[in-house]
Amino acid sequence: MPLSDTTRIDGGDVESVLRELLRGVHEVLPLDDLRARIAQGRPLNVKAGFDPTAPDLHLGHTVLLNKMRHFQRFGHHVVFLVGDFTGLIGDPTGNSATRPPMTEEEIAANAETYKEQVFKILDPQATEVAFNSTWSDKLGARGMVRLAARHTVARMLERDDFDRRYRSGRPISIHELLYPLMQGYDSVVLESDVELGGSDQKFNLLVGRELQKQYGQPSQVVMTVPILEGLDGVNKMSKSLGNYVAITDPPEEMFGKLMSISDELMWRYFELLSLRDVAAVEDLRRQVGEGRNPRDVKFLLGDEIVSRFHGAKEAQRARRAFIDRFQKRLAPDDVREVTVRGRDGGILIAALLKSGGLVASNAQGMRLVEQGAVRVDGERVSDKQLAISSGTTCLVQVGKRNFARVTVA
Amino acid sequence: MPLSDTTRIDGGDVESVLRELLRGVHEVLPLDDLRARIAQGRPLNVKAGFDPTAPDLHLGHTVLLNKMRHFQRFGHHVVFLVGDFTGLIGDPTGNSATRPPMTEEEIAANAETYKEQVFKILDPQATEVAFNSTWSDKLGARGMVRLAARHTVARMLERDDFDRRYRSGRPISIHELLYPLMQGYDSVVLESDVELGGSDQKFNLLVGRELQKQYGQPSQVVMTVPILEGLDGVNKMSKSLGNYVAITDPPEEMFGKLMSISDELMWRYFELLSLRDVAAVEDLRRQVGEGRNPRDVKFLLGDEIVSRFHGAKEAQRARRAFIDRFQKRLAPDDVREVTVRGRDGGILIAALLKSGGLVASNAQGMRLVEQGAVRVDGERVSDKQLAISSGTTCLVQVGKRNFARVTVA
Repeated sequence: MPLSDTTRIDGGDVESVLRELLRGVHEVLPLDDLRARIAQGRPLNVKAGFDPTAPDLHLGHTVLLNKMRHFQRFGHHVVFLVGDFTGLIGDPTGNSATRPPMTEEEIAANAETYKEQVFKILDPQATEVAFNSTWSDKLGARGMVRLAARHTVARMLERDDFDRRYRSGRPISIHELLYPLMQGYDSVVLESDVELGGSDQKFNLLVGRELQKQYGQPSQVVMTVPILEGLDGVNKMSKSLGNYVAITDPPEEMFGKLMSISDELMWRYFELLSLRDVAAVEDLRRQVGEGRNPRDVKFLLGDEIVSRFHGAKEAQRARRAFIDRFQKRLAPDDVREVTVRGRDGGILIAALLKSGGLVASNAQGMRLVEQGAVRVDGERVSDKQLAISSGTTCLVQVGKRNFARVTVA
Repeated sequence: MPLSDTTRIDGGDVESVLRELLRGVHEVLPLDDLRARIAQGRPLNVKAGFDPTAPDLHLGHTVLLNKMRHFQRFGHHVVFLVGDFTGLIGDPTGNSATRPPMTEEEIAANAETYKEQVFKILDPQATEVAFNSTWSDKLGARGMVRLAARHTVARMLERDDFDRRYRSGRPISIHELLYPLMQGYDSVVLESDVELGGSDQKFNLLVGRELQKQYGQPSQVVMTVPILEGLDGVNKMSKSLGNYVAITDPPEEMFGKLMSISDELMWRYFELLSLRDVAAVEDLRRQVGEGRNPRDVKFLLGDEIVSRFHGAKEAQRARRAFIDRFQKRLAPDDVREVTVRGRDGGILIAALLKSGGLVASNAQGMRLVEQGAVRVDGERVSDKQLAISSGTTCLVQVGKRNFARVTVA
């Protein structure tokens, strides 16, 4: 998606704008308010906050960035807010050795790294990069006390994680209650119309709504995006779990990681990471339903993502390298070459195995397919009726070590 | 007690110094530490905090001031700390209309009024008047967050009043959790050896101990004084309850209020407000036990307190005025004058009532004494065996309107 697509869509078609903005979102509160503000036809202030301590973004972060990008496409004003105030403080309890206070220089350097990364998705011309220390420090000690007065302890402890920790007797330091308020204060200063965040941020985003009300502003619309699952398809994508794709990963590594995900997760990634429109993704899904190899569709996903961060050429190169590497890794160097004869333009898999000398009988071939022990070009065969077309050459594998490069004549 | 008694008592007699300092206190934590610091023979930093919003001190406040005075008598350095930081903020929730933010000028003016009042008790030469905004403002927004990180929510909610409010669902604003920390930070900055406060301040004073420890200082000794009961002898003395004696009350009003307290409360006031030493007060108690009129002892209390704030001359004048006013108020102008005959140097009260024509019979006289309906010189008679000496003239009252000025011949 080229950056030059940042053009204003004027008033008129509110519902279609809304459909695009709502794609893949987890929750919007309140939806009617978002509709009304879009109908106003003015650029909305759209805010999303980022931690300055981890500029090494992975695809999980880009779900949010993509949503910011969607707003930019409709001419809205996006604020990429670096939450440097808390970074300057670090973890004041000293409990977390990994969060020492950062210097202004470190934060500035991180912000630069951030920009390099996020401007692969966001339009730099339509993005305001802001640092909340600008206004948070100005609060002074008194302002911080006044801010703290704007919420009660009980309501703050309703936040899921606070509630769990409080009930189980795990300590919550008092300053932790201040952070949601400071995030809310950011919304007040920025007069934000919409705040975007992960679904785990919902509570903090709602605090912003309340604070704006207390400051006599209209309350922002809260829009949360889902947490992206990591490559394992189970846990959230995170650096510490090792199930991530960094957006600075080299093209081949990125492509390879994306090819390792399950077919089911692939559709989730299409929903949250692809900029293909919904109709296009539905079409791919239909094709797979009608027999298209999911691997080919996964290639499209890999192409799109790698292209976004490294360009189309690198994506092509990565794809070729993946196929080469993939086949090398699987097949021994001295893989046997064999030709089998097709009938009516192809050959059923069990017959191919038998003719290719990979199994002793058709029945054994059927059984091994049932057991999931047969792969064609590295993809597990699950359909006993799979036919390989005449004219194809493919790498066929039975079990761990039994390979042949089979050409169907 | 003249101010010139501020002299250093050197080392040596630690135990006797300790006895004086402990007089009337509610609690000392830890006592051994106080003993050890006194034994060091250096001037201790003794801190007590005062709210800048209410410079109109009453006797309840002087319990604490008296204790500060005791420390001054032994050469210690007393800090009269004006908690102006919170005053500058006011009640940020706006719930309490009576606590708007104060200006620096208002606080300075209040501090002057404070000084005028407290230097009737404290030695100005040995008192440092400090304002905590001096160092609290310097914390800035970041310092405030760091300070907030030094305590957990759970431990703060252990404070009695927080606990009650939290359990009963009454709101606690988050900034309220910051105030005990700020009070503790005052102790860190002042490197206080001892913090004095009312017994309701114990929790906050203990927070100071913890914070000092976290800052690598020895933890202060915490000394609390009891809350003084108001003139009703039941509720704490407070302006809003109207049961108070302001130290700026005019002499006559102050004397009159003190004369209105019960005999029981009188001993409490001797303990907490008198600067007479313990032995002297015990002696008075013994005298009353042996029949001395408690009213006379109450006069001594009134004399001492009025003298402290208005000088001995004014105290005398107030006492005389009280007696005059008292008698005028009780007796009608045309009070009947009567003389009764004593026997063996006096006459029992029931016989006096009968002979004076105030009751119909001795038996009725006894019964009315039992019912508490009989007063001599305004004091209720509780002892049926009370004898009035020959040569005395006194105002005798039965019920509300039955008076006679009786001379015992």
